[in-house]
Amino acid sequence: MTQPLKVALLGCGTVGSAVLRLLDEQAADLTARIGRPVEVAGVAVRRPDRHPDVPAHLLTTDALGLVTRPDVDLVVEVIGGIEPVRSLLLAAFEAGKSVVSANKALLADEGGELHAAAAKAGADLYYEAAVAGAIPLLRPLRESLAGDQLRRVVGIVNGTTNYILSRMAETGHGFTEALAEATELGYAEADPTADVDGFDAAAKAAILASLAFHTPVTAADVYREGISAVTSTDVARAAEIGCTVKLLAICERVPGNGDGEGDSVAVRVHPAMIPTTHPLAAVGGAFNAVFVEAEAAGQLMFYGQGAGGQPTASAVLGDLVAIARNRVAGIAGPGVTSYAGLPARPIAETPTRYHVSLDVADKPGVLATVAQEFARHGVSIATVRQDGHGDAATLVIVTHSAPDAALSSTVTALREMPAVRAVTSILRVEGLS
Amino acid sequence: MTQPLKVALLGCGTVGSAVLRLLDEQAADLTARIGRPVEVAGVAVRRPDRHPDVPAHLLTTDALGLVTRPDVDLVVEVIGGIEPVRSLLLAAFEAGKSVVSANKALLADEGGELHAAAAKAGADLYYEAAVAGAIPLLRPLRESLAGDQLRRVVGIVNGTTNYILSRMAETGHGFTEALAEATELGYAEADPTADVDGFDAAAKAAILASLAFHTPVTAADVYREGISAVTSTDVARAAEIGCTVKLLAICERVPGNGDGEGDSVAVRVHPAMIPTTHPLAAVGGAFNAVFVEAEAAGQLMFYGQGAGGQPTASAVLGDLVAIARNRVAGIAGPGVTSYAGLPARPIAETPTRYHVSLDVADKPGVLATVAQEFARHGVSIATVRQDGHGDAATLVIVTHSAPDAALSSTVTALREMPAVRAVTSILRVEGLS
Repeated sequence: MTQPLKVALLGCGTVGSAVLRLLDEQAADLTARIGRPVEVAGVAVRRPDRHPDVPAHLLTTDALGLVTRPDVDLVVEVIGGIEPVRSLLLAAFEAGKSVVSANKALLADEGGELHAAAAKAGADLYYEAAVAGAIPLLRPLRESLAGDQLRRVVGIVNGTTNYILSRMAETGHGFTEALAEATELGYAEADPTADVDGFDAAAKAAILASLAFHTPVTAADVYREGISAVTSTDVARAAEIGCTVKLLAICERVPGNGDGEGDSVAVRVHPAMIPTTHPLAAVGGAFNAVFVEAEAAGQLMFYGQGAGGQPTASAVLGDLVAIARNRVAGIAGPGVTSYAGLPARPIAETPTRYHVSLDVADKPGVLATVAQEFARHGVSIATVRQDGHGDAATLVIVTHSAPDAALSSTVTALREMPAVRAVTSILRVEGLS
Repeated sequence: MTQPLKVALLGCGTVGSAVLRLLDEQAADLTARIGRPVEVAGVAVRRPDRHPDVPAHLLTTDALGLVTRPDVDLVVEVIGGIEPVRSLLLAAFEAGKSVVSANKALLADEGGELHAAAAKAGADLYYEAAVAGAIPLLRPLRESLAGDQLRRVVGIVNGTTNYILSRMAETGHGFTEALAEATELGYAEADPTADVDGFDAAAKAAILASLAFHTPVTAADVYREGISAVTSTDVARAAEIGCTVKLLAICERVPGNGDGEGDSVAVRVHPAMIPTTHPLAAVGGAFNAVFVEAEAAGQLMFYGQGAGGQPTASAVLGDLVAIARNRVAGIAGPGVTSYAGLPARPIAETPTRYHVSLDVADKPGVLATVAQEFARHGVSIATVRQDGHGDAATLVIVTHSAPDAALSSTVTALREMPAVRAVTSILRVEGLS
């Protein structure tokens, strides 16, 4: 069959332009891989006059008209945001089209509804580009690891914050200066809130957790702390204990207590110290990496470029080939499963480990008093280092794992102890054995 | 539908036993993920009395009878080797069964025939476990990167040789001692030929290259050198220039000269020095990792356990879920494409870089004479280090890229030069910028 498959492209920014270019450059290869040529049916944009590179007859402002056009087979969405995209994609499914989306916010919040609509229509929904750009990650979770039991997925999934934290470590600068540099170099957007406050990572964490644990997880289920409170002291303290600070998206299956309480899913985004020997510690700058622990497979890591027009377009085109091959075969691929329906575990009850640095009076018995405060909250201490200087001393404490609420209430209590002059650094610690 | 899908298991060694155990332990999850329960229909083994853990009524020596039984839906093959497996799988396809195989030798040599048989039968053939154990790699190449153009795939895909080379670097021991240690610890088999001489890695390279370049590549197309000739001097010299020695499987698309000569595919397995800063350099012991460079996606890396019963079984079960889901949906997934049919480039014409260490007489003009010999063969030198000691000197030379034949004939010529007392180390170098 040589009748082309027709693609509607929604949005034509950096990623959309790269998709158009690759569709053109690799037309012969794509035809051979799919079994039929792929042709762009139209490109929906808000301001057609801003896209002089796109043939004028393809441009339209009528996105709804485009996705429901009878000759359109496949829809590629690279607009972003919730509405009007949600409605457009629901309309596309209703009209029987398969969809590729790069929209993490939408998939994190409305993934369930969209998957249901796709299944009802016998259509496909893929969104590899929504998490960690070019890194093949969602397909491995959906398919390659579908015969295994996942324990944890821990990722560096936001390049902007990773760049800022890397620069803080390299230069000793504080957050504000590092952010200013990132903005100047184009690594941070003019309004960096979505990245810096962890919203972007939280959406990605929700998507990862949903697939990893066969459980619907939305961004609202994700505990979220950004990096704006990370200080140069935190970064320096991390280095002193052989760690580095990263913004992590952590998706965990927490085993039940065997006494009526079943397994639950804890999903959180926050800065944490990780040992410099951990595979994620070496992931610098704008790169992304995701570390996966599975029952049978053991430890896996996926590494690559997490953003940018070309890498994101590569992921979009991989999905496009998949839905196109299915369309040629007259089938839809398997959807995602969410049968497990595990409850979301609140951060307060999620086991974490803390690093705490304190300035204390250098008097006998201070360490004992501080240690007692940890014990009183049921928190066990893993290591303490005490450095005296004059009449003051610094205590650097790393705890064992305890419910996050116990740890944070310990810190609150420490702040009020007369012997503690200042709590100079608190950060969670991950990846210690 | 609750009618179970029936699985025939061929072989029941380490991997087969792990598959059986996981099928049992994760039965409820697998049922939910697939949409129907999976049931073991039978297990074909040579000596049933050696498998007391398997229910006796499942065991059979009649593998052909088992794979063609009308009630069997899916076949999992973990026997290994070419025959009788090839015939069994062809019979399975003819009977309409879908197949999961972990058999790298078979897929490398007979992949084309098996894929054709699967396509003819409307059945699936997956073999994620054949390369790099638990690491999701073949599915990403087949699907996730199907919209991109791959340039290079470079992998550490053999744990035994990686363990031996890691130990040589750590202890300063030679190959023989390190191999003895690996054998004692169970990291090397009693007959280590397949690993040590690179046959295992070459089969995996053929599979990777076939998928990466949409071109049929068999093990016979792969240039192969093992690690038995790697000396402690090679390892020491590597360290001196900031490198480490790894056995690499390298699959490259070599661009044509634009003058009638088209692109070709160069696939090779040999030890090489790589910079310690390269992501593959840190892959130690029995771990595997594969580094991928694609036109749009850029650099990607996949890391994890490359062998062992559990990790391999995880990959087998991932494929089993895939073919089971397809069976439930009454479809077959997309096969592999080999439309590109790129010619295999002989090693002699493949561009490589060499490191060469020479003991020379410490006389004026020796360096010039040696440099001239490289120039005479059209090989350009990147760096030279000369260390004098008494009347002798050591020259350590790293070349730029040149056809491998030019490099090896340069070395042959050097060996015959009066000024050269000995060629103490020659290894190819990869991953330098």
